[in-house]
Amino acid sequence: MKIEILCTGDEVLTGKITNTNFSYMAQKLEDVGLSVYWGTTVGDDREALLSAFHLASARADAVIVNGGLGPTVDDLSQEIAAGAAGVGLVLDEEWLARMEHFFTSRGRTMPPNNKKQAMLPEGAEFIDNPIGTACGFALDIGKARFFFTPGVPRELFRMLEQQIIPRLLDRAGAPGMIKLKRFHCYGLGESHIDQILEGVEDLAPDGSVKLGFRAHYPQIEIKLTTRGSDADDIETKLAPVQAEVKRRIANFIIAEDDQTLEGVVLAALTKEGGTLAVAETFTAGIIASRLVSHQSGRHIMRRGVTTRDREELYRATGLTGFPHQDAYDADIAAAAAENLAREAGASHALAVLIDVDEGPDRRDLGGLIQIAIASPTGTVTRTTRILGGWEWIRLGAVELAMDCLRRHLHGLPVHERTDFEKR
Amino acid sequence: MKIEILCTGDEVLTGKITNTNFSYMAQKLEDVGLSVYWGTTVGDDREALLSAFHLASARADAVIVNGGLGPTVDDLSQEIAAGAAGVGLVLDEEWLARMEHFFTSRGRTMPPNNKKQAMLPEGAEFIDNPIGTACGFALDIGKARFFFTPGVPRELFRMLEQQIIPRLLDRAGAPGMIKLKRFHCYGLGESHIDQILEGVEDLAPDGSVKLGFRAHYPQIEIKLTTRGSDADDIETKLAPVQAEVKRRIANFIIAEDDQTLEGVVLAALTKEGGTLAVAETFTAGIIASRLVSHQSGRHIMRRGVTTRDREELYRATGLTGFPHQDAYDADIAAAAAENLAREAGASHALAVLIDVDEGPDRRDLGGLIQIAIASPTGTVTRTTRILGGWEWIRLGAVELAMDCLRRHLHGLPVHERTDFEKR
Repeated sequence: MKIEILCTGDEVLTGKITNTNFSYMAQKLEDVGLSVYWGTTVGDDREALLSAFHLASARADAVIVNGGLGPTVDDLSQEIAAGAAGVGLVLDEEWLARMEHFFTSRGRTMPPNNKKQAMLPEGAEFIDNPIGTACGFALDIGKARFFFTPGVPRELFRMLEQQIIPRLLDRAGAPGMIKLKRFHCYGLGESHIDQILEGVEDLAPDGSVKLGFRAHYPQIEIKLTTRGSDADDIETKLAPVQAEVKRRIANFIIAEDDQTLEGVVLAALTKEGGTLAVAETFTAGIIASRLVSHQSGRHIMRRGVTTRDREELYRATGLTGFPHQDAYDADIAAAAAENLAREAGASHALAVLIDVDEGPDRRDLGGLIQIAIASPTGTVTRTTRILGGWEWIRLGAVELAMDCLRRHLHGLPVHERTDFEKR
Repeated sequence: MKIEILCTGDEVLTGKITNTNFSYMAQKLEDVGLSVYWGTTVGDDREALLSAFHLASARADAVIVNGGLGPTVDDLSQEIAAGAAGVGLVLDEEWLARMEHFFTSRGRTMPPNNKKQAMLPEGAEFIDNPIGTACGFALDIGKARFFFTPGVPRELFRMLEQQIIPRLLDRAGAPGMIKLKRFHCYGLGESHIDQILEGVEDLAPDGSVKLGFRAHYPQIEIKLTTRGSDADDIETKLAPVQAEVKRRIANFIIAEDDQTLEGVVLAALTKEGGTLAVAETFTAGIIASRLVSHQSGRHIMRRGVTTRDREELYRATGLTGFPHQDAYDADIAAAAAENLAREAGASHALAVLIDVDEGPDRRDLGGLIQIAIASPTGTVTRTTRILGGWEWIRLGAVELAMDCLRRHLHGLPVHERTDFEKR
């Protein structure tokens, strides 16, 4: 089935906003085994819209149109859709009543403009939007089925997942159900993971499990998309593949599905009634930021300290008695972590001290990274070097340090070599 | 002139990467007074590419094709371009030699695959890429001029600005030069700024200055695009408009052109030989992060402390003797800032203490914000409330606090009311 995504609106066309709706939709479709064949972007322009609808109707089987369902004069999707299909617009009384209730329940009167949002092309299939005033609809134009969706991301996301994808799968004649299993990994590069996982798909009976990746440095996501007749069938097909992925990737799996690394670390701390303090030098406080902004980090994250000044790092972590030297070392990191834990009254502390190579930013610039974790069972340290310029070092060090903490809390080896380190 | 942007590649089409190249190009074109009429996205697929090239050549005057110039088999742009133009591919000996040098100068041998990158459609105009192995080229297909650009963002950005935009302006017959003047504002909403600036464009002699906005909460960018015959002409036309924008927006202008709020704050501190420490509660260390990761923040930012725990905030800022109360107030914020400045040996300190309403995140959730700035000239405080849910409060408080610091350092009123506060 050929699917086209047609994004409308001057804000997207002029680059005022980045089109994240497109990548979101394309990914969600890929996740259920569908794929996008063509993408079109046009502005709030009658001629361009009509032409785009006609072109899409001729080359695609299904078209998802995004945007243009609002109450203002430049929202043209219903009007142009009706024109392209050769039908008129009719008032959907039920949606009008729903909109009026939407406003009155918030103590407001519906502006007359909004009535426009209840005008749908004759014969269109209504598609519900339980969280906004722009309802969706579906309509045949030429040989293609068009699905019209709101531009507001949270309204689109919900409508796509709950209403449009099931309809697309139906039309594609896809058998039964689809499940996406995700593993988030840190420490192995994409081509390395690809090589390690060679052949795992063959463990599923009939090619029903598809392996995919998504890299966003320094994490890689492993995706297993399974097709089956029902939940049991999917479990049967997925189980051997999933088990083998876990066996091969092992300690490099940091989280699964909707979990995050920070969530996993905080959950492990919660389990043992622990609390945490963090001292960071070059990483701009990103570790503390990720942990403290997480819901469960509120009481576990006792203190985050960030500085790039060596002397100030010594003061903030009670190292003033320590001899000054040109570079951080494991002993300094260990003492910083131990002092900080004591001072902040935390059971655990993480110190991440980085000496970045001198000179302007460049691709082969490196950083020496000292990580120390103080905990009730003692202090562990890890020394490493990452190459790749400021941003690469910063992001790499953040992930490595948080992963060391995860490994320590889970009783896994903290020193396992990653693909991102140079020795 | 009708311009189309044609993005190619499976990674973009499948949503593996978000298409920021598109919004970047569209914006850059808008900034010089050009605009995009149509956007197309197709994968690494011969049939789709050829069809996309033909469609674009029929509806556009100029087409920017992005991606598909790499050395691998799925990079098809040169081949399909030649096919669409009905010409063959010829080896560009000069580019081949440049590529070979590119590799040998890095101590490597050029892989044979890369030769493909020097194969250009017959009659194509060569477009230089001084920082990569994918050269650009231009070619007529049908009635349109096609410009082929690399997918690697930094290579694309440079080629677009230095090579493609001048050629497009030439073709558009645009008179002379274009200049973009930008003001970054904080504290006024977009519609409010729009209203304040009503009529400023009329101060330019002949409609040669165009006013535009770009909102990324909580900042708004005011853009003045001026067309003129040369630099002097542009200055003459822009000057009265620019002066009037400055007069009307006044203290709400936080930075101009490539400046950032953090850069402006750090420059003001540098000027008076000052240093800074920051204590944050709900903002997840974002203020410290923005300042410490800035080049000039390295030595000025002495210490950033972040926590969400009230007791720990008291400890980390030496407030242990302070009476405990249910909410932060201006006195607590002032004492926290003063203590922190002393403890971190900084001339200035900023404390941002936030009490967020209880309950789950929702759109009408608010936060009470206490800001204090300790400095050699004394301590100032500001109390306010922002509504809009966790993320909105967090981002709003970060900008407000940094702006208060900017105002204090520049001798401007710290208490000027913003549009984002509820009282």
